[in-house]
Amino acid sequence: MPIKKKQTIGWIGAGRMGYEMAGRLAKAGADVMVWNRTKAKAEPLTKYGAKIADQVSELAARDIVFCMVATWTDVKEVITKLLASGKTKPKMVIECSSISLEGSAALREILESKNIQYLAAPVSGNAKVIKAGKLTFVCSGPQKAFDIAKPFLNLIAANSSYVGEGELSRIVKICHNVFLGVVTQSLAEITILAQKAGVPRHAFLDFMNQSVMGSTFTRYKTPAFVNLDFKVTFTPQLLRKDMDLGLDAGRRFEVPMPLASAARDLIQSMIGQGWTEQDFATLLLQQAGASGIKLKPENVEVGDGLS
Amino acid sequence: MPIKKKQTIGWIGAGRMGYEMAGRLAKAGADVMVWNRTKAKAEPLTKYGAKIADQVSELAARDIVFCMVATWTDVKEVITKLLASGKTKPKMVIECSSISLEGSAALREILESKNIQYLAAPVSGNAKVIKAGKLTFVCSGPQKAFDIAKPFLNLIAANSSYVGEGELSRIVKICHNVFLGVVTQSLAEITILAQKAGVPRHAFLDFMNQSVMGSTFTRYKTPAFVNLDFKVTFTPQLLRKDMDLGLDAGRRFEVPMPLASAARDLIQSMIGQGWTEQDFATLLLQQAGASGIKLKPENVEVGDGLS
Amino acid sequence: MPIKKKQTIGWIGAGRMGYEMAGRLAKAGADVMVWNRTKAKAEPLTKYGAKIADQVSELAARDIVFCMVATWTDVKEVITKLLASGKTKPKMVIECSSISLEGSAALREILESKNIQYLAAPVSGNAKVIKAGKLTFVCSGPQKAFDIAKPFLNLIAANSSYVGEGELSRIVKICHNVFLGVVTQSLAEITILAQKAGVPRHAFLDFMNQSVMGSTFTRYKTPAFVNLDFKVTFTPQLLRKDMDLGLDAGRRFEVPMPLASAARDLIQSMIGQGWTEQDFATLLLQQAGASGIKLKPENVEVGDGLS
Amino acid sequence: MPIKKKQTIGWIGAGRMGYEMAGRLAKAGADVMVWNRTKAKAEPLTKYGAKIADQVSELAARDIVFCMVATWTDVKEVITKLLASGKTKPKMVIECSSISLEGSAALREILESKNIQYLAAPVSGNAKVIKAGKLTFVCSGPQKAFDIAKPFLNLIAANSSYVGEGELSRIVKICHNVFLGVVTQSLAEITILAQKAGVPRHAFLDFMNQSVMGSTFTRYKTPAFVNLDFKVTFTPQLLRKDMDLGLDAGRRFEVPMPLASAARDLIQSMIGQGWTEQDFATLLLQQAGASGIKLKPENVEVGDGLS
Repeated sequence: MPIKKKQTIGWIGAGRMGYEMAGRLAKAGADVMVWNRTKAKAEPLTKYGAKIADQVSELAARDIVFCMVATWTDVKEVITKLLASGKTKPKMVIECSSISLEGSAALREILESKNIQYLAAPVSGNAKVIKAGKLTFVCSGPQKAFDIAKPFLNLIAANSSYVGEGELSRIVKICHNVFLGVVTQSLAEITILAQKAGVPRHAFLDFMNQSVMGSTFTRYKTPAFVNLDFKVTFTPQLLRKDMDLGLDAGRRFEVPMPLASAARDLIQSMIGQGWTEQDFATLLLQQAGASGIKLKPENVEVGDGLS
Repeated sequence: MPIKKKQTIGWIGAGRMGYEMAGRLAKAGADVMVWNRTKAKAEPLTKYGAKIADQVSELAARDIVFCMVATWTDVKEVITKLLASGKTKPKMVIECSSISLEGSAALREILESKNIQYLAAPVSGNAKVIKAGKLTFVCSGPQKAFDIAKPFLNLIAANSSYVGEGELSRIVKICHNVFLGVVTQSLAEITILAQKAGVPRHAFLDFMNQSVMGSTFTRYKTPAFVNLDFKVTFTPQLLRKDMDLGLDAGRRFEVPMPLASAARDLIQSMIGQGWTEQDFATLLLQQAGASGIKLKPENVEVGDGLS
Repeated sequence: MPIKKKQTIGWIGAGRMGYEMAGRLAKAGADVMVWNRTKAKAEPLTKYGAKIADQVSELAARDIVFCMVATWTDVKEVITKLLASGKTKPKMVIECSSISLEGSAALREILESKNIQYLAAPVSGNAKVIKAGKLTFVCSGPQKAFDIAKPFLNLIAANSSYVGEGELSRIVKICHNVFLGVVTQSLAEITILAQKAGVPRHAFLDFMNQSVMGSTFTRYKTPAFVNLDFKVTFTPQLLRKDMDLGLDAGRRFEVPMPLASAARDLIQSMIGQGWTEQDFATLLLQQAGASGIKLKPENVEVGDGLS
Repeated sequence: MPIKKKQTIGWIGAGRMGYEMAGRLAKAGADVMVWNRTKAKAEPLTKYGAKIADQVSELAARDIVFCMVATWTDVKEVITKLLASGKTKPKMVIECSSISLEGSAALREILESKNIQYLAAPVSGNAKVIKAGKLTFVCSGPQKAFDIAKPFLNLIAANSSYVGEGELSRIVKICHNVFLGVVTQSLAEITILAQKAGVPRHAFLDFMNQSVMGSTFTRYKTPAFVNLDFKVTFTPQLLRKDMDLGLDAGRRFEVPMPLASAARDLIQSMIGQGWTEQDFATLLLQQAGASGIKLKPENVEVGDGLS
């Protein structure tokens, strides 16, 4: 793929997800230079051929710069530094963090005023999903920008979808997370029902995962549901925030969302009762409590469908 | 697989699903004899090497008899005829229809009193799913019966899960269908939200299907959501019945099911408003109406993930 | 009212409610004979002029017999004994206990076969409400029976409504209790919201009670909400039972009941978490927990609108 | 009450509610001067002894000025004009319109900077309720201001509650309206259930209104439910707005509100389906549709508990 060789890539952010994404790009042979606030975290990427920048401004000379950081505040800060020189600038910025529609629109204004193409490209998946090659992108912005970006996106992820102009991909990401909240609560309801009827959780989820209803998500949440390991992948507070963004959008566009509302309130209840330090999948424990039982780990080895 | 050669199979029911299931068995080389109320419907199975029975009682001499008919009334009738002679009888019956826990328990009593092994084995999927080799079984009854049945189940389906003694598989099937109801309603909510925000349904679902949340189910419902072809695969009334079975079980086992309850009431509302002759996926149309819009087919060719 | 003088009254059941009801009849000058399983509990009624029976069968010679006991099993037992002689029998039975539609219909069959008029007449209120003269009856059965009964009902209660033939009053009572469940949960939601915003519960409920939304019910629940005295008037389990009867009726008549379903599941959650020994108004405590706070009694003297 | 004679009252706003409120003050002998945008609408108040102002600024010389207009924009405009001279100013402003917490706080800042006492005093009731003498106030601000205002409030209304400092009364009013939404939907559910079971709506509501659950509100909504006269008293859009204010407060204070959320979404569904020009009590019609029936007026004369 000679077209890819010609383009140079800058990568901002080597956190849990950014590290894996940049790593996949580098391993696939792309010319990648990575900057991370804590440089040491990025350094292992050199073994895949990535270069490491000392300053984020060094990435300004790259053709395409990806950004994968934590919040809109971080995005604003690093992009400002990236473009600080006012001379060198990338042709395109691909922003993958989970930021709001408003943040995304503000970023678009900044970049377009400097004639830099901008692709809003949030993702579905976590660090383990990336490693397993199952990440997906949802993209919005100019179709032309997407066409240029696509070969690179596909080095990182299993798929990249283009959903239209502007910040539409941000809405889609919010919808995705609303679905995730509803699916998790529903899965908690039926798992506890099956258990109280006499079906072990691992047996129940084994069937569900293999059934037409099974998804990568239900599979990778299975170890948590079976063995009650709730090491945080996504906090209840962050999920509540995304549910609220979805419900806000529902109000703005006059779309009633009864299941999303009900799931949202259950997440709030869980937070109110003090479940804030573990993964949002503790919805299972709340459901068990509401059903009069206390769960125990089943201590059965179950796969997560990723490794 | 010599063990399979030794066992002979009887198959009751060549409806939309039974036909495909028996067909897969026969194609895989199993010795299958099929009976169907309307014999002509079963006859094309001879091209795969299946034999056709005139009377259901002819299947009594088979080692294992599968039953895949419509209702508990049908099950009772055909099993009674199967065992009418009182002399010949199969070693095992595998019942795959969607019958209630009570029906299943009554059948178990009949069969065990005659020393016939009984496996309750409902399925996840529809005729197209079977054809695509993606059907799955969930089984309950004696572990020994499952072990004998498994090689045959795996000729028909992609997977078969064993969840325990007695009628537990019936509860699991109900949980599966409750989940299907909730997932469909939630998908309707977010698809309409995304559409009102400006994202075409096909683009939205393309991403969702590729994302970690995508399932065989979301993929095969996509053509209906995009192009509004609501030819019935499962009626709203049948889904309501299964939701009610789930909520009944929730009451019996004292498991609150807030999302299932909310989805159930939306299905009832849809029925009340007269949406009874099409697929339950018309939940999308109800959601659109509640959001002030009338949908049009997008007329975009989208895959169903099966063919 | 000479017609009342001519009719003699039998009264079965001098529990918390029956005692107050019979007492009001006697005080108003009616000719009442009371039977209670534990005779001593009925005896204080003599001070109002009531007679006390040793055997329930003594009431068979009365013109109208009221029945106010605990369950359908009790009703069946006492009515059987009442009619055991086969010779003497009352002209009318007025059944006020909270029994099911099916029980009520069975009782009707028994009584009508003996040419005894039957009025199904459940009530709205508790012992304190009766004392305060605010009890109400909802009646069904032959209009003629209601017309005869009405003057007596109105000696006991503030009002008696006739809603039609057969067991219709039983459905109405169930609807009433469904409403009570929904109203209590909603009141819990807004009381906790107001409190977290800074409004003391007694101040909030003082306004609500005086507002157009205030009812006898919101007023008599106010002391519990303010000072957290949850001495049982109605258990969570009994409320759940009535919610389930309402939802069952909703299914039978194809009426979706989204608020009733949601309230029902919250009552189930409360029971699952172990709140079973106090009044159902502990819904307030569950709501507080889900909102991250622990309530304290406000120790403010508030009226209940009854005394 | 000589203290009242000494104080002079200004009244801004003679719309449907303001007219009735000012009228009650004047009839009770208070010295009232009224200003209304359309002067002619205020003029009939002279028959009760009220004076009519040409300019709102004429009210600046009054001791206490009440404000009862439509929106925060109106409030801001009239108060600005009231205080435009910079010289004369009232001692107190009592603001009764349904404005937001933020608007109320902004008004407080304006008034306190000019040393004018400010009482936030929204109401429960509509024009007919005022006429019937059943209006109630909920007040917040300095206790001292409430003590001065109370005798005048009680000339207008049946009761006035003080709930604390600042804008707390606004939150209480929002809670009140959330309750109103939930109660109306629940009443719709059970009324349709009773009707499908065979109980006429007027008979059902007669009992409910007399029962411990009956309120001024259930009584004055009864004619609409029975005879389907949905002349607007409060639009679905305004109710949705108040439900959303309640849910917003729920988020801010971390109070899950499952019943409020569910009711809110049903109101949104009604709006989405085009029910926007009539009273919000058309929730009954939506409920009937969801239950497969079309309602007809019962054409039974029923009271509203007010006249």
